[in-house]
Amino acid sequence: MARVVVDVMLKPEILDPQGQAVANALPRLGVTDVSSVRIGRRIEIDFTGEADLDRAREIADKLLANPVIEDYEVRLVEGAEVA
Amino acid sequence: MARVVVDVMLKPEILDPQGQAVANALPRLGVTDVSSVRIGRRIEIDFTGEADLDRAREIADKLLANPVIEDYEVRLVEGAEVA
Repeated sequence: MARVVVDVMLKPEILDPQGQAVANALPRLGVTDVSSVRIGRRIEIDFTGEADLDRAREIADKLLANPVIEDYEVRLVEGAEVA
Repeated sequence: MARVVVDVMLKPEILDPQGQAVANALPRLGVTDVSSVRIGRRIEIDFTGEADLDRAREIADKLLANPVIEDYEVRLVEGAEVA
């Protein structure tokens, strides 16, 4: 088995209200040295055989990310402990 | 500036209906060699000064993850291009 991870984040120019809410809550925890929090998605895709990055990219394009407002990155997880 | 990434995933024993929905849609794309899809969150925290992993862990504990159903991992992003 092999695992591919797809990281989907809002494009930098798109406002992220969820991350902003977390950032705004930080001073209440006494944290004042954080300039920005951005929240995206992490998707783990387990292949039965060999990992197929092109396939994973196709899945990300069609099912996981909205290319209008989101960027994604596909990467192989080396030595992943996949049960 | 320094960036810390927090990956939050549902614990393996917790059902992930969102990931399951993606997995179930894959045969329609002609993808038959994926055994599992799990969807979690990726949070990017930018520190104004040096990255503080302990601080990031505290933020994850209190604001980002639900420790009853989720696991999280905190890691420094080396050489991150943070504007």
